[in-house]
Amino acid sequence: MPGVGVKSAQRMAFHILQRNKEGGRQLSQVLMAAITEIGNCRRCRTLSENELCTICINPAREQNLLCIVETPSDVLAVEQTGVFRGLYFVLMGHLSPIDGIGPEQLGIEYLRDLLNTGAITEVIMATSTTVEGETTAYYIAEITKSYAHIHTTRLALGMPLGGELEHLDGGTLARALSQRSEITV
Amino acid sequence: MPGVGVKSAQRMAFHILQRNKEGGRQLSQVLMAAITEIGNCRRCRTLSENELCTICINPAREQNLLCIVETPSDVLAVEQTGVFRGLYFVLMGHLSPIDGIGPEQLGIEYLRDLLNTGAITEVIMATSTTVEGETTAYYIAEITKSYAHIHTTRLALGMPLGGELEHLDGGTLARALSQRSEITV
Repeated sequence: MPGVGVKSAQRMAFHILQRNKEGGRQLSQVLMAAITEIGNCRRCRTLSENELCTICINPAREQNLLCIVETPSDVLAVEQTGVFRGLYFVLMGHLSPIDGIGPEQLGIEYLRDLLNTGAITEVIMATSTTVEGETTAYYIAEITKSYAHIHTTRLALGMPLGGELEHLDGGTLARALSQRSEITV
Repeated sequence: MPGVGVKSAQRMAFHILQRNKEGGRQLSQVLMAAITEIGNCRRCRTLSENELCTICINPAREQNLLCIVETPSDVLAVEQTGVFRGLYFVLMGHLSPIDGIGPEQLGIEYLRDLLNTGAITEVIMATSTTVEGETTAYYIAEITKSYAHIHTTRLALGMPLGGELEHLDGGTLARALSQRSEITV
């Protein structure tokens, strides 16, 4: 488990066996229920208890905006900003031939089905700004290019909020400089 | 001194007194020379041994581009990206009324003199993206607005390179979303 080493695991095991057998029994049941009941949303592939997730079945979401992210936790991160009211598509990873992750593993065929419905007018690529994330974004942009009515956009690159120049890496600073924008006061 | 606590200071003092008196003597002389000889560049206010710094006297720099930064180390950070070939103006801080730092302490009158020469056609605000940095940027943008031939720009805000959505703060992610740009493949 991430963040749990041998010592911590041992401490947890002894805690359950010596002090909280009832809690351990409940944890076991909840875990089994989660594993058997949580699957993937049929439309956006995020983790969901139902066939369609709560975002996909919500008619109040903007049906023409599609935000493509790598993981279900990225969906949460974008939702928490409160500025995005469209739909998602979750790749469940990024292109990584060395790990055997190609277009098939990322569900690109489901994405094509979604684009073929004709409802989407803007695809926002919100993959990581790592090499794999950028490669994945450009691979998908190549696909969306063939749909004349779809705009494909990418999250802005630049300085993070609250950042100081001195602590910024050179690559980000170079991008922030070359993509500077007019100030209006 | 930044990064030196009581223990480290004591260790350094004993090292010099017991093992390296000659090194200590040299350090003392170099320090005194630095303090007496290094002043501020008459034009851009950065630290400099001469009346004008090496950037200000270099005729190969683009004389119409002015990048405004907070500190001399920000000048170094921008120089290291290798993408900027213009001139600098160093504020030596940011507006902070609570610390008694107003327009006078930031040398705004020298900046006005520089803008009045008429050579500058673009002012790039490269202050921090903190509240104080943004306030300073907008204060200066108000001044440059009165010069009809000067464009005022700001470094791009967004995701840093190599960043993952999940680890980004909400404010930056919201900005990156709202300032997204078209992908061209």
